[in-house]
Amino acid sequence: MAEPTPPVALIMGSQSDWATMCHAAETLSALGIGHEALIVSAHRTPERLFDFAKGAKAKGYKVVIAGAGGAAHLPGMTASLTPLPVFGVPVESKALSGQDSLLSIVQMPAGIPVGTLAIGRAGAVNAALLAAAVLALNDAPLAERLDAWRKRQSEAVALQPVDGQ
Amino acid sequence: MAEPTPPVALIMGSQSDWATMCHAAETLSALGIGHEALIVSAHRTPERLFDFAKGAKAKGYKVVIAGAGGAAHLPGMTASLTPLPVFGVPVESKALSGQDSLLSIVQMPAGIPVGTLAIGRAGAVNAALLAAAVLALNDAPLAERLDAWRKRQSEAVALQPVDGQ
Amino acid sequence: MAEPTPPVALIMGSQSDWATMCHAAETLSALGIGHEALIVSAHRTPERLFDFAKGAKAKGYKVVIAGAGGAAHLPGMTASLTPLPVFGVPVESKALSGQDSLLSIVQMPAGIPVGTLAIGRAGAVNAALLAAAVLALNDAPLAERLDAWRKRQSEAVALQPVDGQ
Amino acid sequence: MAEPTPPVALIMGSQSDWATMCHAAETLSALGIGHEALIVSAHRTPERLFDFAKGAKAKGYKVVIAGAGGAAHLPGMTASLTPLPVFGVPVESKALSGQDSLLSIVQMPAGIPVGTLAIGRAGAVNAALLAAAVLALNDAPLAERLDAWRKRQSEAVALQPVDGQ
Amino acid sequence: MAEPTPPVALIMGSQSDWATMCHAAETLSALGIGHEALIVSAHRTPERLFDFAKGAKAKGYKVVIAGAGGAAHLPGMTASLTPLPVFGVPVESKALSGQDSLLSIVQMPAGIPVGTLAIGRAGAVNAALLAAAVLALNDAPLAERLDAWRKRQSEAVALQPVDGQ
Amino acid sequence: MAEPTPPVALIMGSQSDWATMCHAAETLSALGIGHEALIVSAHRTPERLFDFAKGAKAKGYKVVIAGAGGAAHLPGMTASLTPLPVFGVPVESKALSGQDSLLSIVQMPAGIPVGTLAIGRAGAVNAALLAAAVLALNDAPLAERLDAWRKRQSEAVALQPVDGQ
Amino acid sequence: MAEPTPPVALIMGSQSDWATMCHAAETLSALGIGHEALIVSAHRTPERLFDFAKGAKAKGYKVVIAGAGGAAHLPGMTASLTPLPVFGVPVESKALSGQDSLLSIVQMPAGIPVGTLAIGRAGAVNAALLAAAVLALNDAPLAERLDAWRKRQSEAVALQPVDGQ
Amino acid sequence: MAEPTPPVALIMGSQSDWATMCHAAETLSALGIGHEALIVSAHRTPERLFDFAKGAKAKGYKVVIAGAGGAAHLPGMTASLTPLPVFGVPVESKALSGQDSLLSIVQMPAGIPVGTLAIGRAGAVNAALLAAAVLALNDAPLAERLDAWRKRQSEAVALQPVDGQ
Repeated sequence: MAEPTPPVALIMGSQSDWATMCHAAETLSALGIGHEALIVSAHRTPERLFDFAKGAKAKGYKVVIAGAGGAAHLPGMTASLTPLPVFGVPVESKALSGQDSLLSIVQMPAGIPVGTLAIGRAGAVNAALLAAAVLALNDAPLAERLDAWRKRQSEAVALQPVDGQ
Repeated sequence: MAEPTPPVALIMGSQSDWATMCHAAETLSALGIGHEALIVSAHRTPERLFDFAKGAKAKGYKVVIAGAGGAAHLPGMTASLTPLPVFGVPVESKALSGQDSLLSIVQMPAGIPVGTLAIGRAGAVNAALLAAAVLALNDAPLAERLDAWRKRQSEAVALQPVDGQ
Repeated sequence: MAEPTPPVALIMGSQSDWATMCHAAETLSALGIGHEALIVSAHRTPERLFDFAKGAKAKGYKVVIAGAGGAAHLPGMTASLTPLPVFGVPVESKALSGQDSLLSIVQMPAGIPVGTLAIGRAGAVNAALLAAAVLALNDAPLAERLDAWRKRQSEAVALQPVDGQ
Repeated sequence: MAEPTPPVALIMGSQSDWATMCHAAETLSALGIGHEALIVSAHRTPERLFDFAKGAKAKGYKVVIAGAGGAAHLPGMTASLTPLPVFGVPVESKALSGQDSLLSIVQMPAGIPVGTLAIGRAGAVNAALLAAAVLALNDAPLAERLDAWRKRQSEAVALQPVDGQ
Repeated sequence: MAEPTPPVALIMGSQSDWATMCHAAETLSALGIGHEALIVSAHRTPERLFDFAKGAKAKGYKVVIAGAGGAAHLPGMTASLTPLPVFGVPVESKALSGQDSLLSIVQMPAGIPVGTLAIGRAGAVNAALLAAAVLALNDAPLAERLDAWRKRQSEAVALQPVDGQ
Repeated sequence: MAEPTPPVALIMGSQSDWATMCHAAETLSALGIGHEALIVSAHRTPERLFDFAKGAKAKGYKVVIAGAGGAAHLPGMTASLTPLPVFGVPVESKALSGQDSLLSIVQMPAGIPVGTLAIGRAGAVNAALLAAAVLALNDAPLAERLDAWRKRQSEAVALQPVDGQ
Repeated sequence: MAEPTPPVALIMGSQSDWATMCHAAETLSALGIGHEALIVSAHRTPERLFDFAKGAKAKGYKVVIAGAGGAAHLPGMTASLTPLPVFGVPVESKALSGQDSLLSIVQMPAGIPVGTLAIGRAGAVNAALLAAAVLALNDAPLAERLDAWRKRQSEAVALQPVDGQ
Repeated sequence: MAEPTPPVALIMGSQSDWATMCHAAETLSALGIGHEALIVSAHRTPERLFDFAKGAKAKGYKVVIAGAGGAAHLPGMTASLTPLPVFGVPVESKALSGQDSLLSIVQMPAGIPVGTLAIGRAGAVNAALLAAAVLALNDAPLAERLDAWRKRQSEAVALQPVDGQ
């Protein structure tokens, strides 16, 4: 019997993006949100991108998180092929430190939105949290887990810095 | 009898941001999505920001769209005070053309996400479309309206450019 | 009887890009190179992009010139779907003056090349000239026309600036 | 019996900012200026920020130094909640080297000022020196200590560079 | 009988900077703070700069606001010659929109601080407000006027945007 | 008997550029495309540049790949002296990470085109692939090798990321 | 009888650069320094560039001022072909406001210097003044004229800004 | 008996700049040009700067090379105080890689020129070469040494890259 489709698809342009995107996966796991991680290269596997994105909603995904670097076309092309909300993570690139990734993802023309997060690890964590916020709109237990996660985060902030770090 | 709270709150830092953010309002209206536009200045009315953001979920909003320019703190501070999904629109600033707005909104630290759209009008339109995509996850009629909107958009693209423009 | 396919396809993301890309068309015409101008939006008409790019070689095109602005995915996605040489023209965008367009086009990952020209009109003219240089490798009369064009260009440079402009 | 409130509050967004902000603390100590270092995250502890900033003047602080990185909202939000002078230190961020921090802090809209210093360690040292200059306006002994500090600094500049470094 | 020295010196590199710096003067006037506006070009009148800055404290100024554009050396050189607090306003430059002005002012080395405000008019207004905050530390009536100014500013923020602007 | 001229000349500004440009050479070799690597410094050997570029077509080259860093004038000057297609590779520079190289190569004025690839290694690989696409227009066996190379590239993309890298 | 060669050659890439470079000519004239203005396009007339630059010293020029925009190769290529001092003026470009011009001129590799001035009109004026400073090293009357020019410049700086501009 | 003043003064803002500026000194030595290296901090020793710059011509220097980083005011302030030609070297800064240094030095207003070289070591070498070109205008033996240096440089460029580096 097939596994049910998890709510979040976590796609990325290459294996090397996993070093960033694994933080999205970990955050989703910490919140108890099912997800599937796939390598879908907009440039090297455009057919896979088309098949994935056009079928994403029918397959049962609710949210797509897409990470890519450099001339990062994966999030925007996915968004052009699915009505699902797409959140983009600019992976830090070598020469330009992710400035190219960021602009390639966030500067989408009117008509096809990609909700873009910060460059690198912080963006990956936050894409997961934003997906959680979206899914929590109709999942009360998840909303509670997310509130608890945020509360723990607040409580974990010490009052004073510790010397000697 | 009070009006029911619409699903989308559309906040902005100042009256001058409305020239950009009205495109979000128009797009929401075109999709039949209720919304309320409010001026909430993170810097000039921090108390209003706190009250708004802390009460947004209880009041019944589902999604917050926040637009601001320059050292744009409104989207991020709102996101720190509500578990609702927050989408940020960098308003084009005078000297730096919105590069300051973009970085101030998108580069949030891990823990508090803002789904950021493009600088200016395109970002405002797309924030509305992203809100629609989120709401459509649990609103089949809206999903149909969104699909129709996207289909009309595709069909409106002519095959060949027209000279003499 | 159908027209034969011209050697150059000139594609762009929207009607508004024609104000830039018409300079490529004019330059091709000046050099006697057949071309066809098409609007192919990567984001609003992804199916049209797929059909165009996958069929471009079989249809008989030799070179593709693609212009787009902002998060400009058209040149790179086309290059991922055709073995033909693709030349990209970053169209000047409103807020970021084409810096986003440039990085979205030029920073392609290893494996899928886009030969990128300058932002705006100069890039459009030069994309045509580069296509001419490629086609001239196997078209001696075109090589002669290109040489003559370049010679006229050199001769048109006056020796001294004229005051009062 | 409670300690009296020192004149300078030194706040920062996270423990990791201490590696930068400790240089402000050291400089204040070298000048004999009392200070208190606190972690106040605008995003993870917005309530703590509100309580701190709204109460800072009543508690007896004279100057607030605030350091933060990335989408750095702490200095500006503090400035929106207190009439005290606020000096901001952009902490160097990973991907963008503090360019995001700088713009998020310095580009405040008219109405709420943050006196911004350089990115990183130099900015932290200088925030302390600027606080000293402010406090010295009404503290003659401090003015003398500051003059002496500046004089020693001038005298410590050798006349010629030493080879072999 | 000579006029007493006002608390704020407002210096700028050229007459053309006055279009920006007049907003600082207006804000100081609105707050009832005495000030004197002087043109002191670091580059064209370096002797005037030296004389002004070295004598500023003895003459009775409390705070210096310095505005300059391009390779803006006026604020930093003034700060190197006076122990008074110096606030810098990056004037918007033609080619680089004030990015050169900003970096030339804010990136001071450890040892000589300049509290830097935003590029252009907002920065000029805020330099005046920051000077007010500093002076208000020891001037209770000014503190009240500043509080009233801030309160009026908050109250002037309308709740909802007005269409048709 | 002299070796025949290979179709691709691979020129670079200095020995240190070889660390980048060797990736172009390797890719050409993998595709079975003859090439010759030469150091031609626009600045230190301008005569060599002139002789090379003016004679390139007569010598029998079909395509020139030129890599350079910093104020990178080699690709553009070569393009001004030969009607052959010239592809430029911006070598990553030390202080500015290749942003200077990129702009110096891509922003050519109307009249002299350089097809520019990405900064660094990816750009070098892609310059070779673009040269292959150009040569394949009239070399069916090469077209087949290029198709095979692209197919292998697509097939080499795994479906899911592997943890633990 | 031929005119003697003036000490300064003022070259530029195109007629359109004259709108900027005429300010260098005017400043040279104001200082009584002979000069000749020539259009020498590195890209469209590379032979003219070679002939000019290789013969500049023998012809009797002492200093070369070179202005160009975009991928500005004229100053650097001239410097590679003459031992004379070369001063470069980055002409403001359309899309990138002269940032490309500046980096293309200033970031020369070790071995071939170009003394670079500011973007646009200020740079053109200053290139003339720098040429004057160089020529004045061995021309006492010119040194006096330059001193007088600088003195008048200092004296022309008013003490206070004039309202109402 | 006092040493005669050498033709080149090599000044820098701090001891740490020597790691860059020593390359100027080495190049001057290699060309047999006398020079003196001094630390003159515009910010920490403004009096030393004034005394040095105002007396530089009378003391017998012909050319000043000034290196500084960050908000680099040394070259421009020196140029405002001496009629001698001043060449500026932007020292690579930590956070912004010398972009702040470059803009602070090159963007001088009309009236006070600084001939600016590249960021870092290349700029230091080239400042020395530019000083040599200036001095060689009236020193035939130096002109010969400079020609020989340039010739050796050209000859040292190998024809083909060596693998295995």
